[in-house]
Amino acid sequence: MSSREERFTVLKDKLREILNIRAVLALLQWDEEVNMPPNGAEARGDQLKTIAQILHRLETDTYLGEELSYFYECKNGLSSDDAKMIEEARYDYQRAVKIPSSWVGKFAEVRSKAYHAWVQARHQSDFSIFQPYLDEIVSLCRERASLLGYEKSPYDALLEDFERGTDTQTLDRLFSELEQEQSKIYQSVLGEGRPGSVFEGKTWDTGKQWEITLQLLSAIGFDFNSGRQDRSVHPFTTNFDIYDVRITTRLNSTNLFSGIFSSLHEGGHALYEQGFRKEDRGTWLAQAPSLGIHESQSRFWENFVGRSFSFCQYFLPLLKQYFPNEFENIPPELLYREINRVFMNFIRVEADECSYNLHIVLRYRIEKDLIEGSIQVSDVPDYWNHLFEKLFGSAPPNDADGCLQDIHWSHGSFGYFPSYALGNLFAGQILEKIKTELNIDELIKEGDFIPVHDWLKKNIFEIGRRCCAKEIVEKISGKPVSSTPFLSYLKEKYSKIYQISL
Amino acid sequence: MSSREERFTVLKDKLREILNIRAVLALLQWDEEVNMPPNGAEARGDQLKTIAQILHRLETDTYLGEELSYFYECKNGLSSDDAKMIEEARYDYQRAVKIPSSWVGKFAEVRSKAYHAWVQARHQSDFSIFQPYLDEIVSLCRERASLLGYEKSPYDALLEDFERGTDTQTLDRLFSELEQEQSKIYQSVLGEGRPGSVFEGKTWDTGKQWEITLQLLSAIGFDFNSGRQDRSVHPFTTNFDIYDVRITTRLNSTNLFSGIFSSLHEGGHALYEQGFRKEDRGTWLAQAPSLGIHESQSRFWENFVGRSFSFCQYFLPLLKQYFPNEFENIPPELLYREINRVFMNFIRVEADECSYNLHIVLRYRIEKDLIEGSIQVSDVPDYWNHLFEKLFGSAPPNDADGCLQDIHWSHGSFGYFPSYALGNLFAGQILEKIKTELNIDELIKEGDFIPVHDWLKKNIFEIGRRCCAKEIVEKISGKPVSSTPFLSYLKEKYSKIYQISL
Repeated sequence: MSSREERFTVLKDKLREILNIRAVLALLQWDEEVNMPPNGAEARGDQLKTIAQILHRLETDTYLGEELSYFYECKNGLSSDDAKMIEEARYDYQRAVKIPSSWVGKFAEVRSKAYHAWVQARHQSDFSIFQPYLDEIVSLCRERASLLGYEKSPYDALLEDFERGTDTQTLDRLFSELEQEQSKIYQSVLGEGRPGSVFEGKTWDTGKQWEITLQLLSAIGFDFNSGRQDRSVHPFTTNFDIYDVRITTRLNSTNLFSGIFSSLHEGGHALYEQGFRKEDRGTWLAQAPSLGIHESQSRFWENFVGRSFSFCQYFLPLLKQYFPNEFENIPPELLYREINRVFMNFIRVEADECSYNLHIVLRYRIEKDLIEGSIQVSDVPDYWNHLFEKLFGSAPPNDADGCLQDIHWSHGSFGYFPSYALGNLFAGQILEKIKTELNIDELIKEGDFIPVHDWLKKNIFEIGRRCCAKEIVEKISGKPVSSTPFLSYLKEKYSKIYQISL
Repeated sequence: MSSREERFTVLKDKLREILNIRAVLALLQWDEEVNMPPNGAEARGDQLKTIAQILHRLETDTYLGEELSYFYECKNGLSSDDAKMIEEARYDYQRAVKIPSSWVGKFAEVRSKAYHAWVQARHQSDFSIFQPYLDEIVSLCRERASLLGYEKSPYDALLEDFERGTDTQTLDRLFSELEQEQSKIYQSVLGEGRPGSVFEGKTWDTGKQWEITLQLLSAIGFDFNSGRQDRSVHPFTTNFDIYDVRITTRLNSTNLFSGIFSSLHEGGHALYEQGFRKEDRGTWLAQAPSLGIHESQSRFWENFVGRSFSFCQYFLPLLKQYFPNEFENIPPELLYREINRVFMNFIRVEADECSYNLHIVLRYRIEKDLIEGSIQVSDVPDYWNHLFEKLFGSAPPNDADGCLQDIHWSHGSFGYFPSYALGNLFAGQILEKIKTELNIDELIKEGDFIPVHDWLKKNIFEIGRRCCAKEIVEKISGKPVSSTPFLSYLKEKYSKIYQISL
């Protein structure tokens, strides 16, 4: 029998091994999106499968579980950080072992078929092609919820994968407020008419766009010695270490702002990943506690910073430097209006800030009802169109632009969508607090983003997984999670832009 | 007990798993050289270690060994390809299990220290800094040779890691011929004086260089749907599948040809990796049987094709397209002479075709004597200088440009160097045969490389690991491995360029 100290070292090595394999998996996926030649896909699938199997074995290893329980039950001599690390790793372990390999295998198989069916269904705008696969996905997700266990709603069990600490009861409250309030704001702004773009028909050199994104990333404090940016079809952020954080952007030669805001969005995620404590590096603590809190950072930089009037004041000289003719007669007020145009848009990923949450509320209602069994998969298209009309004022013209638009359900990701809206609400509470401590508008206008970055680092990033998202937000704002600050922000912003009272 | 068929399927899956993990390891290394931000190095080291450990476990797994032996001893019902696959995998397995983990751990530790000592020793041109570590490396390599077993020389055991089928007896014969003949050719050519470059002091846009390398790679048949080129400090080729083969090049703004020939060299390696049979994909058979035969392909394309007069005729219009002023008054004869300038060069990696093998002969003599114990590590600097003077006509000015120039020994790679020279000799025999079947000069002049590529694919690549390198070359040339064709090629080439009789 080895000494307690030796056992703890072995345990830490085992945990580190899991994190190393997760990093390898992330690299395989990053490379697939960024570099892989088209014919490499099949072999990459094999490599991913092999690594995923190894990871699953390590994550559910009996010896690991025993050692985690041993140190969880007897924390003598452990530092508080080590004790917390054990607690969090044990939490993940206990969830992982609740799911048998047979379920994992079946789920992977169904997902793969469902994905292909979804691509076809969306292409033909024919829900019936996807329906039987979605049926299976929903059944498997319900089974997963039973395996994981829950108190009130099976949806709570799924939500916990992405948003531990938040339950359906909380979401019902928050999302009802959004349904009432944000829907009203949106429909009022929309009533003002959609302003046309002042840049209609212009094209933008992507090389210059790339330079602008790099400058902005440097300005907000992205460390290029510990990360990089590339281009990919779908922008994303990944990390293999706090010193190797990678983001991607998508540049569009007919839309200057799409790539720029995409870079700011992913840059916000990246600051989080680069911002954990050095001492937590390579441990369970150097992780964000939820998707929602992660999303709060991307939206903070993309929208609260990037789409603010102060940012336009800072940003305009930079744009003029790269595109002198195009921005010759553009005052900051016009740029501000340009990047905050409000649309009637059926597609979530193209939605503006004013309507985005409503897309989430709709998906949440459907997901929850499916998982709780109060509606059937066959009800989805009609239910979608009904809810859409209620929230947005009109229904989508077809299912491709309606209930077939997102990839998530084909991937079996139920419980994921709420994080997007929670991110906005969390960010709203964070902004409200920052404003009491920093003159954020002035700092943004001066391009001095570092005090803001430092504030977020200290109050959010460095906590790592020591608290859940709800606790972080409550600690910052001194209040429970709430939709009020975000809604106030929206009202203030759009009433100014459109000179209307909201 | 499962059926024989089921057992064979399980075995094939296990072998595939090993190849998948090797591909993952290769991706981690590729990314490290091509993309990784500087601060990512430490975490990457951890990830590589974790994957290497997993790979070692899989490669030496007892169950795998038992199953390989079972099917090796009882081949009933296996296709000849499956039987060969088992034989080769068993060969690798049996070598792997001869080396205990304790040796592997010790070797890794010493290599790491030796590498750092070598960097410092080279920087200060002080062999004494490196000597104690090289002593340990040599001891460990001698131990490895004993563990692996050998009949005549312990160096044979090490050679087998890189050049199975070739032994010291063969190398003694071949390299004596080179020592006699190539040394004479080289010193005669060198006597003609070193022609200065006609492009002295010119700079070359690296963007245009990049375009040229891509065009040449496409021309020789590199498939960009199944591979890509990137830039790195040290050019190399790697592959994760026959449909995902990656090369790198290094572009130099003051030397146009360095990057171009580097791309052709790596391109030659890549054609091999892309050229295995589709049916062998993901099996033990889709591998080159030795480093030397692999190197024959890189040197074939870099030197036999790329530095030929016909290639200059083909290439000049392309160069004129990108650099019209620089090549305005350059006839193909001058370009030919330019890319075949012969130097007195102490450094192997900068050596010209006329002297390259001599650098290898020197290293071979030293390595063999060290491993056989007939010289000591402390003898290396003097021995190096003595041999160098004999082969090249003068000794290097210091150890940094002498016995400390290569990284290989610090990595513990004893037995690796001979493959470089063997590659040239193999290529010489291959070229001699091709010339009897194809009008290669005419094809190159026309830029019609595909018949040459197809010939190599059919006669070399598609064999995979079914034969060893020696067998492939003997089958092609109808004669034993020989230095004669390569030496004849050198004589013919340089007597023409310099108008001398050799």
